[in-house]
Amino acid sequence: MNAPTTLDGLEVGFDIPALPGMAEADIQTPCLVLDLDALERNIRKMGDYARAHGMRHRVHGKMHKSVDVYRLQERLGGACGVCCQKVSEAEVFARAGVKDVLVSNQVRDAAKIDRLARLPKLGARTIVCVDDLANVAELSAAAMKHGTAIECLVEIDCGAGRCGVTTTPAVVALAKAIGAAPGLRFAGIQAYQGAMQHMELYADRKAKIDLAVDMVRDAVEALNAEGITCDIVGGGGTGSYPFESASGVYNELQCGSYAFMDADYGRILDANGQRIDRGEWENALFILTSVMSHAKADRAIVDAGLKAQSVDSGLPVVFGRTDVSYVKCSDEHGVIEDKGGVLKVGDKLKLVPGHCDPTCNVHDWYVGVRGGVVESVWPISARGKAY
Amino acid sequence: MNAPTTLDGLEVGFDIPALPGMAEADIQTPCLVLDLDALERNIRKMGDYARAHGMRHRVHGKMHKSVDVYRLQERLGGACGVCCQKVSEAEVFARAGVKDVLVSNQVRDAAKIDRLARLPKLGARTIVCVDDLANVAELSAAAMKHGTAIECLVEIDCGAGRCGVTTTPAVVALAKAIGAAPGLRFAGIQAYQGAMQHMELYADRKAKIDLAVDMVRDAVEALNAEGITCDIVGGGGTGSYPFESASGVYNELQCGSYAFMDADYGRILDANGQRIDRGEWENALFILTSVMSHAKADRAIVDAGLKAQSVDSGLPVVFGRTDVSYVKCSDEHGVIEDKGGVLKVGDKLKLVPGHCDPTCNVHDWYVGVRGGVVESVWPISARGKAY
Repeated sequence: MNAPTTLDGLEVGFDIPALPGMAEADIQTPCLVLDLDALERNIRKMGDYARAHGMRHRVHGKMHKSVDVYRLQERLGGACGVCCQKVSEAEVFARAGVKDVLVSNQVRDAAKIDRLARLPKLGARTIVCVDDLANVAELSAAAMKHGTAIECLVEIDCGAGRCGVTTTPAVVALAKAIGAAPGLRFAGIQAYQGAMQHMELYADRKAKIDLAVDMVRDAVEALNAEGITCDIVGGGGTGSYPFESASGVYNELQCGSYAFMDADYGRILDANGQRIDRGEWENALFILTSVMSHAKADRAIVDAGLKAQSVDSGLPVVFGRTDVSYVKCSDEHGVIEDKGGVLKVGDKLKLVPGHCDPTCNVHDWYVGVRGGVVESVWPISARGKAY
Repeated sequence: MNAPTTLDGLEVGFDIPALPGMAEADIQTPCLVLDLDALERNIRKMGDYARAHGMRHRVHGKMHKSVDVYRLQERLGGACGVCCQKVSEAEVFARAGVKDVLVSNQVRDAAKIDRLARLPKLGARTIVCVDDLANVAELSAAAMKHGTAIECLVEIDCGAGRCGVTTTPAVVALAKAIGAAPGLRFAGIQAYQGAMQHMELYADRKAKIDLAVDMVRDAVEALNAEGITCDIVGGGGTGSYPFESASGVYNELQCGSYAFMDADYGRILDANGQRIDRGEWENALFILTSVMSHAKADRAIVDAGLKAQSVDSGLPVVFGRTDVSYVKCSDEHGVIEDKGGVLKVGDKLKLVPGHCDPTCNVHDWYVGVRGGVVESVWPISARGKAY
């Protein structure tokens, strides 16, 4: 049952899918459910890995957009700070008291730069990426206006083909400009290879990061030759973190999906040829959905469609079941192939989303479950913060 | 500039992309922008069409999820009420004072049925679809518990392959059960053919609706033979409304996308072989996005990725431009092919989303623009209301 509240003298439902203490069976669907045991194991495991390899772990908040999940990553996984992709996300984390926030992206709009320059007043170390000399002057002017300091990473495009410069001289020129700009401090290199994370084979992924490491090492050595040191050399995702950790050049990881896992990431293979969701990481995030119609014998209709997930990386997978499968997604409905007719109206299924990041971004709440009981209901604090 | 507000004694940005009176050029991106002139013309046109063909128009609120857009459809387009797909959406519309609300879907969960049964207390005629005899008793019990009346449409699956019964005897049996159940009233037929709306050719779409009309006519005649009349025979979308309007059987349309348009719908052809976004309907909805990096000569990176849209029905189209195109979408970025190098950082583009419904569902605001000035900033009132 939803929490009752009163409006115009009438008791009406309250828009929250669950309350702490409620039985798992009573959760309203569709909603996102976190298996808290699995989540905590994933977080501890990556934290232990980073520590054992002498790496800091700046966890990626763009994936979960949740202050509460970040706090768990800090407490159990030793996260050194958060990275996120938008100023509006950074505001959410900084307002919540996170002390070290990297916007791992370019910020070019005047109003956004102004907001970014105010973040240090909330007590957060504020770091941003730069790939254009013109941006240095913009950031410097805003920091001077607000009397704050912004740290800058030069972004290298090491293969993703999005933002970032592609030559060592360009890195050095930017680093020098940042170092000379009042209100700014050169803090190092951002080099995340976003285009290889989902390649199936470990060797193929390693080959891509080997190229990235070469670019980054060349840039770091050129900077050092100029007497410029890099506090941060950051990058690395769930599909690549062992390579950056072994590189001897990177010192900060930026993993996100490892904590929740999803169907598309889960299919990539580790060094032993095993799917990473069959040992390396556990599925901790699920879309809980209910059968709402079974008017045809061989197909059940569930209540999780395009409004409850993003299917950009494929359809969701029904967790722990081989007898039924999610075969079609429309705005409000999912079609479950149920050849054996084993499902009935009201049955619930746990779906592993195809892609966790944009799926989390359509929901308002994470319902945390342990031992069949709802333990936490966390707001997705930065949901919709795209600007 | 964003509206300033104060937090902990600090002036910080407020998370709203625009304010009324602001110049269009100052809108924060990415965000959804409505061309209010185009929107009003679309709404008036469909309203005029329905009236001229003796049809009521129950506009589909699942598309826009906005009380403000509904009010415009009521005022300018003569909408007789709203339909939506979830109880949580119906609550939003009913609380806002909408007097006639159809949940054009099945409601099977006990807590949701309880919430549905309370809606009439907010002053809203409350209608729901049924495709299973067991649901009749559930709905009746809830209506009796709350002392309210729920009207029921029997849903026919006329080709979409989702919810709904497929035979006339099943329709009649359900109608009789509804008529006999205390607290319920049989109100007619729901028969929306969701699977043909996006077929490219007019003749192909017509052939599918001809089949649907045959099913619905057979059911209505069988009901009439039993002395049961249908107040509502509802269905019809942006890709099919001329056919339902000409059927002589349907009396309510349920169009949604016509008001905003999108790239996928826009490609279907009208009776003259012309794309429907080249005359029949105007693009009124855009994702406004900014160039944030142009570190490579032939590609610009914009700030609208998967967190700003759904790409289930294809990538967005750059509105009014043939020199640049949106070629790749990742979580936070879009890649714009810019072979001529015509774009520069800070330039804004208007994207027509591939699919309007799930794109609207990731945003919090509609920024309404007229003559280069922001006229309205409307909350997407039922965003995320998926349960």
